[in-house]
Amino acid sequence: MKVLIVFAHPEKQSLNHSLLEVTTNYLKEKNHEVKVVDLYAEHWKAGIDQDDFLNHDRGTRLYAMRDSGSAFSAGMLSEDIKEAQAKLEWADLIIFQFPMWWYSMPALMKGWIDRVLTQNFAYAGGKEFKNAPLAGRKAFIISTVGVTEDYYTKGKLGEIDEVFFPIQHGTFSYAGFKVLPAIIGYNADSRKSNCFEITSKIIKERIDNIDNVKPIYD
Amino acid sequence: MKVLIVFAHPEKQSLNHSLLEVTTNYLKEKNHEVKVVDLYAEHWKAGIDQDDFLNHDRGTRLYAMRDSGSAFSAGMLSEDIKEAQAKLEWADLIIFQFPMWWYSMPALMKGWIDRVLTQNFAYAGGKEFKNAPLAGRKAFIISTVGVTEDYYTKGKLGEIDEVFFPIQHGTFSYAGFKVLPAIIGYNADSRKSNCFEITSKIIKERIDNIDNVKPIYD
Repeated sequence: MKVLIVFAHPEKQSLNHSLLEVTTNYLKEKNHEVKVVDLYAEHWKAGIDQDDFLNHDRGTRLYAMRDSGSAFSAGMLSEDIKEAQAKLEWADLIIFQFPMWWYSMPALMKGWIDRVLTQNFAYAGGKEFKNAPLAGRKAFIISTVGVTEDYYTKGKLGEIDEVFFPIQHGTFSYAGFKVLPAIIGYNADSRKSNCFEITSKIIKERIDNIDNVKPIYD
Repeated sequence: MKVLIVFAHPEKQSLNHSLLEVTTNYLKEKNHEVKVVDLYAEHWKAGIDQDDFLNHDRGTRLYAMRDSGSAFSAGMLSEDIKEAQAKLEWADLIIFQFPMWWYSMPALMKGWIDRVLTQNFAYAGGKEFKNAPLAGRKAFIISTVGVTEDYYTKGKLGEIDEVFFPIQHGTFSYAGFKVLPAIIGYNADSRKSNCFEITSKIIKERIDNIDNVKPIYD
């Protein structure tokens, strides 16, 4: 299996970074191929702008969506976007790993999604969900949160799949990915929680059972 | 009324920018005070990192949340964050205006939320929702989407309040804001849709009725 891990955390000594190593090492141990995109290490540019589209005529009005599509089709996206798209096309499985910040992903990862999932590459008129150009790939989230699992219930913070609805449905499923359930490390800020051990175990089980896990969006 | 508009769009000639002008001009016409934060114009830095916290000892492990809280309490946040927080504290109403990208806000605006809503400023242990330090302010979204309103229904793209759940509930309500319904300009990419005229009218009505609109999260 070819696995792309898109990772966003500013701290190398973090729990998230340790979990990234667990995932990477275990995938390699099981003879999978792994590529990691470390967005902080790469100083990933977060904002879509006219520099992304090398065929965009400066001074004319920018239409972020359709200009992304025409730049993709003309091979005129900026180098960083092209490289990211090549990695995504290469992968059978994409893992998005990040600490949950404000009930979503860190801005740098949103900027990866905004800039890499261009029109014509990830969707086009009538080519969304199961008909999307990237369809068939699997994707899931590995995330960490500060609180215990019982906070993520309806009427409190919301169930995880409510919180991740724009990402898992609106983004991953829209782009044609089969979305496997998110893996969440709860109580990540407490040293007593064994979050690292528990989450590492779940990650390894997920890798072992990757072919048998039922998607939440298929 | 003191109104802060946080705005993210890369194009000055865009529909979004025209709607920003409508909002700003109408608020002034009605004798409200307005401040605009234009995130693209400001080249807003999107990613939280150790440069945000001037009291952070380089080389030691960064804990994004608790370090943001201690930097806030010590007056040691970076200048851009301090300025943004001052504007937010000043405001009675905060409008977040952006094109919907991947069923959420553009990365630069997520970066504003990630970096400005620090611990102790926007929340603290037990100080969330109605008890949050910023409680009592009103907030709402003005956004534009490419498709017609009927796409935003359950089972398709999801109802708007499902899509915006992490923002309206997880962020605005968590930070203590009374959240008014989002204003959405549908069919924004079609010249025939009159999106500008329709949305401008709704914005003006919202401003006229601001005291009487029932919050979706109170």
